[in-house]
Amino acid sequence: MRRSDASRRAILLAAFELVGEVGYAKLTIEGIAARAGVGKQTIYRWWPSKGAVLFDAFLALSEDPQGDPALPDTGDLEADLKLVLRATVAELSDPRYDAPMRALTAAMLNDPALAAEYEQRLDAPMRALKRARLRSAQEAGQLPSEADLDLAVDLLWSPLMRRWLERAELTPAFADAVVETALAGLRAR
Amino acid sequence: MRRSDASRRAILLAAFELVGEVGYAKLTIEGIAARAGVGKQTIYRWWPSKGAVLFDAFLALSEDPQGDPALPDTGDLEADLKLVLRATVAELSDPRYDAPMRALTAAMLNDPALAAEYEQRLDAPMRALKRARLRSAQEAGQLPSEADLDLAVDLLWSPLMRRWLERAELTPAFADAVVETALAGLRAR
Repeated sequence: MRRSDASRRAILLAAFELVGEVGYAKLTIEGIAARAGVGKQTIYRWWPSKGAVLFDAFLALSEDPQGDPALPDTGDLEADLKLVLRATVAELSDPRYDAPMRALTAAMLNDPALAAEYEQRLDAPMRALKRARLRSAQEAGQLPSEADLDLAVDLLWSPLMRRWLERAELTPAFADAVVETALAGLRAR
Repeated sequence: MRRSDASRRAILLAAFELVGEVGYAKLTIEGIAARAGVGKQTIYRWWPSKGAVLFDAFLALSEDPQGDPALPDTGDLEADLKLVLRATVAELSDPRYDAPMRALTAAMLNDPALAAEYEQRLDAPMRALKRARLRSAQEAGQLPSEADLDLAVDLLWSPLMRRWLERAELTPAFADAVVETALAGLRAR
């Protein structure tokens, strides 16, 4: 790993940890630099703002940087979605992610510009990957060609988000039940 | 209307408006009293904390105080749920509710005790009313007796919440599509 890669990873991890500890309002470039052991000019060389650092941190740390970002496609939509939603349940239940994600979500509720940046940099690309997997299922005859894929994404992922937001019970069995019921509904129409 | 009822309503409206303007952290009993034109002792006579005032404000202002809180039950589950979800869409799209609800949601993300109070005072009673309507549908043979009613509530209401949270398009047609697809899934299992 080159030295700049190591600094970059240290900065992203520091931003991710700090926002969970102090909240978005009190997150500063100075604080991130101190935690990461770099000068703040190093951060400003790569990112224009604390929001930009934080979104890159969420991107880098919530997915395998070497891995293919596409959703699994074994040809069995139900099995693939259960795998993905169970992984989402595991991530939402991981205490390392919980505080940073709550801090970012709270900040976006009060800050439409931050919410728009999140939508553009994180949410839209993730929705595109989900839609791509569902479109592949349509081509394979596993979902009706007229199914509304945006509705499908919401039916599959929103119940997990609701339970996480309200700190309700969130289990792999719940993920399975959501997949089975949502797919049955999409196929029955 | 008795004088104390008028004061009570003025206090609840002031709390509801103020939290949308200044956020939960900066909401104070003094501020509510000044906006409502009452002394702060009047507020402390009825409520122990700003959170208690605010939850009563959400309860009082988000539903018809004279009305029956139960969900409509005409015998046609799909029609009744469309009516209710369209009303939810209208409420979530109303600018008077938007800022107070975002402020409260953001505060709960950072404050587990406030979230627990919300769960107990508002969310649990509302979920009970939703479950009661779905149970009546089971008794009428409109939903399978083995349907998981907690899953049903999440499938029906979470997609609306997700779109509101992320400021995505939220229309009556979307509410109808959610009802149709979720019910088809619950009936197909």
